[in-house]
Amino acid sequence: MRIGVLTGGGDCPGLNAVIRAVVRKGVSTYGHEFVGFRDGWRGPLEGLTRPLGIPEVRGILPRGGTILGSSRTNPFKIEGGVERIKANLADHGIDALIAIGGEDTLGVATKLDELGVNVVGVPKTIDNDLGATDYTFGFDTAVNIAMEAIDRLHTTAESHHRTLVVEVMGRHAGWIALHAGLAGGANVILLPERNFDIDQVAAYVEKRFQTQYSPIIVVSEGAMPLEGQMVLQNQEKDAFGHVRLGGIGQWLAGEIEERTGKEARTVVLGHIQRGGTPTAFDRVLATRFGLHAIDAAHDGDFGTMVALRGTDIVRVPLAEATRELKTVPVERYTEAEVFFG
Amino acid sequence: MRIGVLTGGGDCPGLNAVIRAVVRKGVSTYGHEFVGFRDGWRGPLEGLTRPLGIPEVRGILPRGGTILGSSRTNPFKIEGGVERIKANLADHGIDALIAIGGEDTLGVATKLDELGVNVVGVPKTIDNDLGATDYTFGFDTAVNIAMEAIDRLHTTAESHHRTLVVEVMGRHAGWIALHAGLAGGANVILLPERNFDIDQVAAYVEKRFQTQYSPIIVVSEGAMPLEGQMVLQNQEKDAFGHVRLGGIGQWLAGEIEERTGKEARTVVLGHIQRGGTPTAFDRVLATRFGLHAIDAAHDGDFGTMVALRGTDIVRVPLAEATRELKTVPVERYTEAEVFFG
Amino acid sequence: MRIGVLTGGGDCPGLNAVIRAVVRKGVSTYGHEFVGFRDGWRGPLEGLTRPLGIPEVRGILPRGGTILGSSRTNPFKIEGGVERIKANLADHGIDALIAIGGEDTLGVATKLDELGVNVVGVPKTIDNDLGATDYTFGFDTAVNIAMEAIDRLHTTAESHHRTLVVEVMGRHAGWIALHAGLAGGANVILLPERNFDIDQVAAYVEKRFQTQYSPIIVVSEGAMPLEGQMVLQNQEKDAFGHVRLGGIGQWLAGEIEERTGKEARTVVLGHIQRGGTPTAFDRVLATRFGLHAIDAAHDGDFGTMVALRGTDIVRVPLAEATRELKTVPVERYTEAEVFFG
Amino acid sequence: MRIGVLTGGGDCPGLNAVIRAVVRKGVSTYGHEFVGFRDGWRGPLEGLTRPLGIPEVRGILPRGGTILGSSRTNPFKIEGGVERIKANLADHGIDALIAIGGEDTLGVATKLDELGVNVVGVPKTIDNDLGATDYTFGFDTAVNIAMEAIDRLHTTAESHHRTLVVEVMGRHAGWIALHAGLAGGANVILLPERNFDIDQVAAYVEKRFQTQYSPIIVVSEGAMPLEGQMVLQNQEKDAFGHVRLGGIGQWLAGEIEERTGKEARTVVLGHIQRGGTPTAFDRVLATRFGLHAIDAAHDGDFGTMVALRGTDIVRVPLAEATRELKTVPVERYTEAEVFFG
Repeated sequence: MRIGVLTGGGDCPGLNAVIRAVVRKGVSTYGHEFVGFRDGWRGPLEGLTRPLGIPEVRGILPRGGTILGSSRTNPFKIEGGVERIKANLADHGIDALIAIGGEDTLGVATKLDELGVNVVGVPKTIDNDLGATDYTFGFDTAVNIAMEAIDRLHTTAESHHRTLVVEVMGRHAGWIALHAGLAGGANVILLPERNFDIDQVAAYVEKRFQTQYSPIIVVSEGAMPLEGQMVLQNQEKDAFGHVRLGGIGQWLAGEIEERTGKEARTVVLGHIQRGGTPTAFDRVLATRFGLHAIDAAHDGDFGTMVALRGTDIVRVPLAEATRELKTVPVERYTEAEVFFG
Repeated sequence: MRIGVLTGGGDCPGLNAVIRAVVRKGVSTYGHEFVGFRDGWRGPLEGLTRPLGIPEVRGILPRGGTILGSSRTNPFKIEGGVERIKANLADHGIDALIAIGGEDTLGVATKLDELGVNVVGVPKTIDNDLGATDYTFGFDTAVNIAMEAIDRLHTTAESHHRTLVVEVMGRHAGWIALHAGLAGGANVILLPERNFDIDQVAAYVEKRFQTQYSPIIVVSEGAMPLEGQMVLQNQEKDAFGHVRLGGIGQWLAGEIEERTGKEARTVVLGHIQRGGTPTAFDRVLATRFGLHAIDAAHDGDFGTMVALRGTDIVRVPLAEATRELKTVPVERYTEAEVFFG
Repeated sequence: MRIGVLTGGGDCPGLNAVIRAVVRKGVSTYGHEFVGFRDGWRGPLEGLTRPLGIPEVRGILPRGGTILGSSRTNPFKIEGGVERIKANLADHGIDALIAIGGEDTLGVATKLDELGVNVVGVPKTIDNDLGATDYTFGFDTAVNIAMEAIDRLHTTAESHHRTLVVEVMGRHAGWIALHAGLAGGANVILLPERNFDIDQVAAYVEKRFQTQYSPIIVVSEGAMPLEGQMVLQNQEKDAFGHVRLGGIGQWLAGEIEERTGKEARTVVLGHIQRGGTPTAFDRVLATRFGLHAIDAAHDGDFGTMVALRGTDIVRVPLAEATRELKTVPVERYTEAEVFFG
Repeated sequence: MRIGVLTGGGDCPGLNAVIRAVVRKGVSTYGHEFVGFRDGWRGPLEGLTRPLGIPEVRGILPRGGTILGSSRTNPFKIEGGVERIKANLADHGIDALIAIGGEDTLGVATKLDELGVNVVGVPKTIDNDLGATDYTFGFDTAVNIAMEAIDRLHTTAESHHRTLVVEVMGRHAGWIALHAGLAGGANVILLPERNFDIDQVAAYVEKRFQTQYSPIIVVSEGAMPLEGQMVLQNQEKDAFGHVRLGGIGQWLAGEIEERTGKEARTVVLGHIQRGGTPTAFDRVLATRFGLHAIDAAHDGDFGTMVALRGTDIVRVPLAEATRELKTVPVERYTEAEVFFG
């Protein structure tokens, strides 16, 4: 078989580990040949390829990012996009595609599968919000980076009797905030799943200042206060109604300073959460996803996606990946509230 | 309720996170009081306690080790041990015990439960070899430490065209070797679950030297070669038949040097695998174990142990913890073999 | 002797290492007694103390922040401040003060010394901009944290063909940007010492995009473009003329996007640069500073400050610390320019 | 000019940073061409080369090891070795050599310089024991790795009331032990520079056990007890009289167990101290060494070596590198003793 591989969407630690596992097993166990498509769906759309064999995947396991490049190109939004993809796949003699990506990338994969393209999906989202799998790779790395930042901030908060607000990724789901907040010993954790009461947050902060320690608040970039608590100009919100200018973290710090009369500062972790070398958990998960994805392709089991269930890698229908967003359930949030204040 | 807490066996990153979660939730949600028993079962045996409340658990979440101390004391091997434990628990007005430990510690807990002591168990083994739970805390930290060491050794191996053998923990189960080896891109992984053929290992090493890269072998301390391949004096093996003097890693390096004519060196990671600050995965798992253990104690659900199943924390009978060792199944080992050589 | 210790100004990894070394040597070698003054000069001003002996300094070596707390209180700006300090020192029977801090804290120390207070200074600035010493502790830690962030960002930049701007600390001196930029392999480094030409920066970015790699720009928070290149509203600059709203990093990213037509993103490292466990370099330097400061106090060599010269710790007049800001010399910047573009 | 580059001796974090800086500045500033000689002096001896230009040095800054490979080959110990080197350099049109290495590599460079070969040296020793320079790169990385291991071991020592012995590199000089011991808060530090009294060490251990904390001993691999205290078979010592079998760390642990009646364990850090990504200090130092070495070559200032003096890079005669071993001076050791016990 001749197999194309592509990576789409935001980068995520572990993408290279998937690519390496796919190629290593494909070549050595099954004798497959590989073509690397560059920059997500733009690769098959525009016929952009790069060689992909054992030599190309040597040494990439510990590296963040993706040697194939990525993009958010959606061929279904481009006139004649699907036809061009089919033509390019035929030109390169591709028997099957392995598409590694999140909701958008796998959404395209699902539709192409329905149109007769042989696709196997590998789920990827740093936010861990795909319903079909227990975990996605990249998430553990992001949580560890955020936790290490929180560990560092504890000492600076205590030395200066100030509140520190840490804004982490998570536009629609608060998994990174929940896990990093629990792991870092945050005093308040705020998620997109539940609008927070800024008065309650200020009360937690005051309570914490009564100990010798200082408060750390972890907030998802997509978290929002209760209706009416945030008075902002229209242009300061983005299309989702999220705060743009300075972000929710900066808004929170301002409100807390005002209500407590004590300094508050914000750190926005941003892109350092998604770059760099993956943790062991993510390298093992990504490697296993890769090994099972190439098995599925070899078996001709197209239209499927690999997923983690407990400690097992299973195959599920591709459509499941995008069926529903996996948000933090209320019992997981309640579980964490015991540490608030 | 008045609840005793103890930690037994080898130390493990995450023990303090369990203790903190138990106390934080016990005090703030249920109004429990706590007594810390020192040094595992020696604490209740000899009446050694230390105060355990909110102030004592502040700041311990990121710390390795256990603030309660540990030991391998087994009260069932001590004349009148059980009676002394019961008397001391009565003296301190203890309604229930939370015992955090591995096979031995929970084995004692199981027997005490049968003798009428109210016990809830929390599983702990850095080796990840308890059958009743998907993962134990400490394991992820150990794997990451081993992986980082392997990452470092790759460059030194390549610069000198030599084989590096990394000996990791795992006397009876090869989980650390398997995960660290996969995550670190090892060329051979050797586990206690399957005796290895030293000639095959040397062949993998030779094959690797044909690339520009150099071989890294990850070996569990309990791995052994095929019958007859290791010719040693009796006194060089310990009670389990494992190599003592210098360990299996050193033996392997010697054999590989001899067979390949190229330098081989050994690194024994030893105790650095089990000390220090836990990873986010372990802090979250340990924290959740603690929260659910205190729930079980509060519910009077004694003789149980908390366990991870998928992403849920569940309660299982204490006896399950020690029923059988969870070794690496053959399919997980086969999955990894694609990377050998 | 009875010796007071205080830490002032922004927190900095290594403060606790100084405190520990002062107390360990003072008690065990000289038999001194210690009083900890809390929150910088506010401590002696308001008579706020905490116990400070061998037990209090156990385990603090690896901890960031300062167990004594800090503040920016300046007693010379407070009516009767100096008299209150003298009275409080007399009340606590203090023979000498060890003041650990930066320009402001040591400026106060210098004036108090002239007014007859026995003071020994220990220099501290994360920005490494004190003229009297080769290095200050905290700087190496900040540079390593920034370097690790840049390492992570390389992969994300490459995967998405975008420019990443990393804004680091350094309001008046560019040492952190220079060292982190050199260590992280940045393509452009921008310092407060030299106004940059935004057109030249855009040219470097374009040049970098011609390789397969993507540009990383490291910029000190205090760096500024050439006169006239930044057109902003007055309220967007702070008292120093620095950009406030979003910072210089965000401004740069906007300009680069506009000029290159390719995405650019900013990461502001902020407080994570100054918190957390110190590097070995900083722990050793801080420890040696502490050991030599207590020697100076014991010798009655007041009005002095410890400083690093080559590999030696020496004593210099306190006034030297604040005499002039140590900025990045032009030859060090020129040395780095070979890597630009 | 056409310039050859080689790296010799044990690998060391920062070698690639030197190579990169040499090539980047040589090509872009001076228009030099480069030839990479492989595996130390074996390269020019046997004419083994690899291409070395801007593309080859991209991305190598953060990587440990050396892309050129290394060896301990000494052409002066090989019949006709010098002549073959001269012939090969002529064949490749080499105008000058940049030799990066330690005592042995630079010793060869010094002799070749005297025989008319144009050489510039760059000092490299992870042990930091070259007299001509304040610091060598690689040392700071090794110290940080050892310190992190000690940090981890503290918690395991405390949880089990046991002594932990950490054996670090340093056959002839104790710099790594001194700095890692100071940074890690060791209770005893033992160096090759001064034979230790095992009874005194045991006394320190006993004293430490009287606190709640447990002892950590850091020992250089080349440290030795007082005459007569170590009773071993001849075959257990190597050519230098150092203990072979199990090393000095293992011997120490045995003696301490016997004298204190409490468990003692040894960790030998070994090769993980010299592999992997360099710290910022080492990347900056190595980069600056490279930039100044290519300047020296361009200036025709042969027979020199770059060196660090305070914060400046200077040129010194090559012969100085090997004139004398820089051991730990007695005052630095005495300074550290305040923390013993």
